[in-house]
Amino acid sequence: MFSLTVRDHMMIAHSFNGEIFGPAQDLHGATYVVDVTFEREALDGDDLIVDIGLASKVLSEVIAEFNMKNLDDLEVFAGRNTTTEFMAATVFDRMAAAIHQGRLGETGKGLCAMKVTLGESHIAWASYHGNL
Amino acid sequence: MFSLTVRDHMMIAHSFNGEIFGPAQDLHGATYVVDVTFEREALDGDDLIVDIGLASKVLSEVIAEFNMKNLDDLEVFAGRNTTTEFMAATVFDRMAAAIHQGRLGETGKGLCAMKVTLGESHIAWASYHGNL
Amino acid sequence: MFSLTVRDHMMIAHSFNGEIFGPAQDLHGATYVVDVTFEREALDGDDLIVDIGLASKVLSEVIAEFNMKNLDDLEVFAGRNTTTEFMAATVFDRMAAAIHQGRLGETGKGLCAMKVTLGESHIAWASYHGNL
Amino acid sequence: MFSLTVRDHMMIAHSFNGEIFGPAQDLHGATYVVDVTFEREALDGDDLIVDIGLASKVLSEVIAEFNMKNLDDLEVFAGRNTTTEFMAATVFDRMAAAIHQGRLGETGKGLCAMKVTLGESHIAWASYHGNL
Amino acid sequence: MFSLTVRDHMMIAHSFNGEIFGPAQDLHGATYVVDVTFEREALDGDDLIVDIGLASKVLSEVIAEFNMKNLDDLEVFAGRNTTTEFMAATVFDRMAAAIHQGRLGETGKGLCAMKVTLGESHIAWASYHGNL
Amino acid sequence: MFSLTVRDHMMIAHSFNGEIFGPAQDLHGATYVVDVTFEREALDGDDLIVDIGLASKVLSEVIAEFNMKNLDDLEVFAGRNTTTEFMAATVFDRMAAAIHQGRLGETGKGLCAMKVTLGESHIAWASYHGNL
Repeated sequence: MFSLTVRDHMMIAHSFNGEIFGPAQDLHGATYVVDVTFEREALDGDDLIVDIGLASKVLSEVIAEFNMKNLDDLEVFAGRNTTTEFMAATVFDRMAAAIHQGRLGETGKGLCAMKVTLGESHIAWASYHGNL
Repeated sequence: MFSLTVRDHMMIAHSFNGEIFGPAQDLHGATYVVDVTFEREALDGDDLIVDIGLASKVLSEVIAEFNMKNLDDLEVFAGRNTTTEFMAATVFDRMAAAIHQGRLGETGKGLCAMKVTLGESHIAWASYHGNL
Repeated sequence: MFSLTVRDHMMIAHSFNGEIFGPAQDLHGATYVVDVTFEREALDGDDLIVDIGLASKVLSEVIAEFNMKNLDDLEVFAGRNTTTEFMAATVFDRMAAAIHQGRLGETGKGLCAMKVTLGESHIAWASYHGNL
Repeated sequence: MFSLTVRDHMMIAHSFNGEIFGPAQDLHGATYVVDVTFEREALDGDDLIVDIGLASKVLSEVIAEFNMKNLDDLEVFAGRNTTTEFMAATVFDRMAAAIHQGRLGETGKGLCAMKVTLGESHIAWASYHGNL
Repeated sequence: MFSLTVRDHMMIAHSFNGEIFGPAQDLHGATYVVDVTFEREALDGDDLIVDIGLASKVLSEVIAEFNMKNLDDLEVFAGRNTTTEFMAATVFDRMAAAIHQGRLGETGKGLCAMKVTLGESHIAWASYHGNL
Repeated sequence: MFSLTVRDHMMIAHSFNGEIFGPAQDLHGATYVVDVTFEREALDGDDLIVDIGLASKVLSEVIAEFNMKNLDDLEVFAGRNTTTEFMAATVFDRMAAAIHQGRLGETGKGLCAMKVTLGESHIAWASYHGNL
């Protein structure tokens, strides 16, 4: 199995609901270093997993929905806690939709799985890994 | 599949038995940067994989058994080589026991797998990955 | 010259005033990985620059003023932009005050300079370096 | 499942064929930070996954075929694009052959899978993961 | 003293002249992770060292002269060895010229010094530090 | 000012004397990631700060005195605490002596200063910086 990862980041504000979150119930924020790993079983005719330039461009477009925002203000997240793990799955869903729309080109259609990892600090990160 | 990783570290002395270890047969030591990855199939009602504060606290308690110790002096390791890979499995076993005892709370009971990685230097690390 | 660095982090929300900030004028946030470097010309009688346990504890106490907060709500920052570089100087000031109060112990009094670096992402960080 | 990773690097020149590569069609180069992960189901009698000294030595020998070279000049790559993902699979193949030849010793024969990751920058890396 | 660092990278081919270089006399290549540190004594009226967006844009423009190139083909380097340390000074010179031309805006004119670091691998990097 | 850094590591056991060390008074150990930074004002005739191959070889030889050892057993450290900062200065002294003996070649004689940093974990490191 082949895989290729590209890295970008986003800077967001948010707060959490629930006693389990302690002081994180207050409005605070995070830098998420976003790693997206694209998986496929064989290389394409150019010896590529995916067009890395296109992959980076689409990732940048996807996270623009969240970057420099207060996630508490986004209707799409109403009733949810925008935890690191939840946001990893959210970025996964957006990237998967982009791939299915053909935004990663022909080669993107050969991808079989993807993993999104969000690093919230030097000591904690979360991932969502799924099939495409 | 969702996963969440927390990082801590421990500083230990030890020596190895067996010609294959060369100069590492003498008493020396290591800093192990310890990454524990918790896996579960769906988020809980708080949009969490596990309570990250609780996970960090339990990890710290688990590695306190080894931190600032000479592993050669611990009876539990008699007859074994406390290699990086062996210690990864050991931390896994201790963390798994803690989860089964409920020390990671109700959410901890929904975890399905775990991976423990011990980094011994900038150029070498070892992991143990298993089901819970 | 000797130096010792300890690392911690804080997660904050904030917004900026001024056209130069573009989309960062909106409420967003950051994880700041905080590195504090303590400098002294000679080691103390224990062969130490500073008590590392005490240094880590005081750093944690200092950044608790900001961690899990919306910096826009803190009166002490009224009229200022809490940029990464501004916050580096702020942490410097708090740590310097702690040292002068003796919170780093006797050894802390022998420190001659300090540098505070705040990492805001994998591609940007800012520092303040000054004498004590 | 146990795994052990060792890291080395190689510095190569190359160019790519195909419009998809844009400016990378011109002769340029890369530092590849090479991580090889060895997997096995149980530790051997010495509590090892593999002899780490031997693993590092064989990896160094394997990448010597490419290090400090212009990959465009190597006949073995004629008609292929030596992308990061392609080179990850190439290093995998060379390491797998070395293992099957017994160059990682008796313990090497117990390995069941391997993953090779080539880091091309702080924001991109590619892997090949396969059974042995 | 305040400082702010931004990171980018470039991928180049080159060869060296002189026996001291051994196998690096052959055509090979490198990824250079480029860190540019801007220094100033006091923050500007926006609480900034420099406009980070502008700094990143200018850095990207400066390294475009070298990125995806064979440095041996650039006339400007005739008779020189484009070592990591030499290229650090070269990027410094280009960035300094850009600052003096006002390409970092009004705030850029308040900078007093700069440091350029080029990382060539996980185990080697070189810098040039100078006044502006 | 130019600088070049090379990285290596050593794995040692030791214990400390003095109440300030708490549990570190017991025998434990550390991996020290060792960064040595060589400084000079101008490049030599080959556009080098120092011969990087020679620098790495001499560093490896210097730390062989400590690597895979219990520092408590070395007479040269009798009566001292082999703290991270103390060991940084010790490696500095050994490297400085090697340079003065000509072990870094002719180019090594043009070096004006050096900095040695020992990383003991992902959250703590210490340095010694001095003239040559």
